Amino acid sequence: MALKAEIVSIGSELVSGQSLDTNSRWLSAELGALGIPTAFHTTIGDDMDDNVQVFRIASQRADLVLVTGGLGPTQDDLTRDALARTAGVKLHEDAGSLAAIAALFARRNRPMAERNRIQAMLPDGAEAMPNPVGTAPGVWMKVGRAAFAAMPGVPYEMRQMFQEQVVPRLRQRRWVERVIVHRKIALFGKGESEFEAEALDLTARGRVPEVGITVHDATISFRIRGEGVTQEEAWAQTEETAALIRSRFGPLVLGEGTTDVVDALVAELNRTGATFATAESCTGGLLAQQITAVPGVSANYFGGVVSYANRAKTEFLDVPAQLIEAHGAVSPEVAAAMAQGARARFGVDLAVSTTGVAGPDGGTPEKPVGLVYLGLATPEGVETRRIEVGPEQPRDVIQRRSTKQALNWARTTLQSWPEAGGSR
Amino acid sequence: MALKAEIVSIGSELVSGQSLDTNSRWLSAELGALGIPTAFHTTIGDDMDDNVQVFRIASQRADLVLVTGGLGPTQDDLTRDALARTAGVKLHEDAGSLAAIAALFARRNRPMAERNRIQAMLPDGAEAMPNPVGTAPGVWMKVGRAAFAAMPGVPYEMRQMFQEQVVPRLRQRRWVERVIVHRKIALFGKGESEFEAEALDLTARGRVPEVGITVHDATISFRIRGEGVTQEEAWAQTEETAALIRSRFGPLVLGEGTTDVVDALVAELNRTGATFATAESCTGGLLAQQITAVPGVSANYFGGVVSYANRAKTEFLDVPAQLIEAHGAVSPEVAAAMAQGARARFGVDLAVSTTGVAGPDGGTPEKPVGLVYLGLATPEGVETRRIEVGPEQPRDVIQRRSTKQALNWARTTLQSWPEAGGSR
Repeated sequence: MALKAEIVSIGSELVSGQSLDTNSRWLSAELGALGIPTAFHTTIGDDMDDNVQVFRIASQRADLVLVTGGLGPTQDDLTRDALARTAGVKLHEDAGSLAAIAALFARRNRPMAERNRIQAMLPDGAEAMPNPVGTAPGVWMKVGRAAFAAMPGVPYEMRQMFQEQVVPRLRQRRWVERVIVHRKIALFGKGESEFEAEALDLTARGRVPEVGITVHDATISFRIRGEGVTQEEAWAQTEETAALIRSRFGPLVLGEGTTDVVDALVAELNRTGATFATAESCTGGLLAQQITAVPGVSANYFGGVVSYANRAKTEFLDVPAQLIEAHGAVSPEVAAAMAQGARARFGVDLAVSTTGVAGPDGGTPEKPVGLVYLGLATPEGVETRRIEVGPEQPRDVIQRRSTKQALNWARTTLQSWPEAGGSR
Repeated sequence: MALKAEIVSIGSELVSGQSLDTNSRWLSAELGALGIPTAFHTTIGDDMDDNVQVFRIASQRADLVLVTGGLGPTQDDLTRDALARTAGVKLHEDAGSLAAIAALFARRNRPMAERNRIQAMLPDGAEAMPNPVGTAPGVWMKVGRAAFAAMPGVPYEMRQMFQEQVVPRLRQRRWVERVIVHRKIALFGKGESEFEAEALDLTARGRVPEVGITVHDATISFRIRGEGVTQEEAWAQTEETAALIRSRFGPLVLGEGTTDVVDALVAELNRTGATFATAESCTGGLLAQQITAVPGVSANYFGGVVSYANRAKTEFLDVPAQLIEAHGAVSPEVAAAMAQGARARFGVDLAVSTTGVAGPDGGTPEKPVGLVYLGLATPEGVETRRIEVGPEQPRDVIQRRSTKQALNWARTTLQSWPEAGGSR
């Protein structure tokens, strides 16, 4: 049976944008790991008509509806009432819940306010789900084709109730039988549509296992969905596809998990034992910052120079002033000299440099905003590359894209270098 | 007329819980500022039936439907098609959009993949909303009682399209009548609770204009809400409160808008004409990166050295090797020498330095993770400060907090310096 879940978050502060709803994401991920796909997230404010309408729609299109919020003691906590109206039943006071609420106040040595009584109200035919860490009990009831589980909006109360009350009920109903894993393989070095074009067979609808593509900052991720009775079986289902992606895209593969270009570069530095330095103009320290954000890189990364002013290029990187005169600071000649200067002055195996026009101002017809030259110095010599991120891009995007290109150039260069201890 | 908005986010990675949807929150807040309440957030995966069903429901219960995602060039981007099906119309290729997409690729000197053509498809009767920063144009069309605005899922593309394309259309339709402005005044230099205690009168419930407090990375922001028929009227309502905050908190005020410590520092650099450089160890380039993220700072900021390895401290900042021997790289002595070295070598008025233990490893009982020394060199000499961010803090927090302290120290120092052209 293919189940469909819907998650409903209730709270005016959520729908107005004052607070960010993180419960839905957490619940979706938990359900996914249990093999129950979530088809809908719906967020609504503390409005009775909207609540009833959304519950009715959910009761028709989903098998399982997880509701968070609206179980508090105040007038704008409507979940109990809205559930009863949707199911067309009355509310009654649940003795067990009332006792539990009273006991909680007793434990906290605080008097139970009269208004907390309302939290013991339960739609006829519903089960109360005990809340050991808060005053609001949850509600489990069948409405239409769907089973509803209403939980508090407070994340730690919701999480405990989900694990201790909801999951056992799902297992009881044999809704939890299969396990789903998601594997993420990150790639960099081509445009999204180029990757997509080369992966049409993988992303084809109905393929097993299913493969999706997401993009973040020009890093493409393939998401492989594996399903099975056990974790192992679900994982095994992804193996062949993962291997296929790795073999097809080879050096473009950064790695698995939350890996990005910089992590893959650091892995190559550790593998080769190569030492590395940076010389930055237009990226202004972003390269250095991204590398040093990764812990334990100090054995390989000696440091960097942010040579924002031309005199800094000369003072710290031995870029001849007349070279800057002749070609301008944004030129392949200066990019090359910066990389070579950094390599020599830091005494490292490998150095990269950036010089360009990050904008928004400073562009010219010959050297528009978004034009960046990269330099790469190795024992074999120095090379440069020209990138154009596009004059319409904001400064931070130009800086991030050119940083990523520079990091990736260092990474792909190191791929051909021997293991640490090898000749170098 | 009481409008109702619905926000629909599309993406399997969202509904499965792999990624967190932040677009809906941002859009709700923006609509709220325009006086349009959001009643529903709905999130769905890349499934045609779900898309069409959700669009149909939205077209019946909302006046304005903002859609994000599903406009990419890949097979699982269904928004254009789903909108057409919901409206019962066909898709056609929009010549203007196709030209714009082709032009974007041309500007980036990259071939346009055949797949990108699909991004120029438009439902009959719809208007294309140009996307100056990405390949996916937006879609504006009427479906049922609702106006739909479909935007890309990439946040900065979505935000720009909302401001430049959607808001004007809302004003055109007179859906935006009352103007609500939010003025944000940022402060730094005290704990949140201290600021709160000194602002109880401002943040009192029911006060007009309303004032809220938010905290980001130890920067406190007062948000003043002004309302009126015109921008001017709404703004005028905030003036007195803004002036009160400025006078009460004086030098702790960083400025208005999205201002943070670094922006206020750059403003002081521009005011004084002082020249500035950085020398970083544990912050690894974050200082330089934050400063150079601000456009037009190159006249004042000459650059920085990321002296991650000790030999880089000696080579570029003239820190005596014996000094590092004697006191260790994480010491006030080395922090002072780094700042002085940077000031001398860059030839600037002011230089700051950082050296510390960013963790997660490398801590000792004497020098625990989170211990950072700052140095500040000026014409008057050099000073150092000791910060302890706390060993339990993650690496990125330790790096961000100490960077912010260093930037703020430079800022407050410059506050007593004369205007540019004054004696220095």
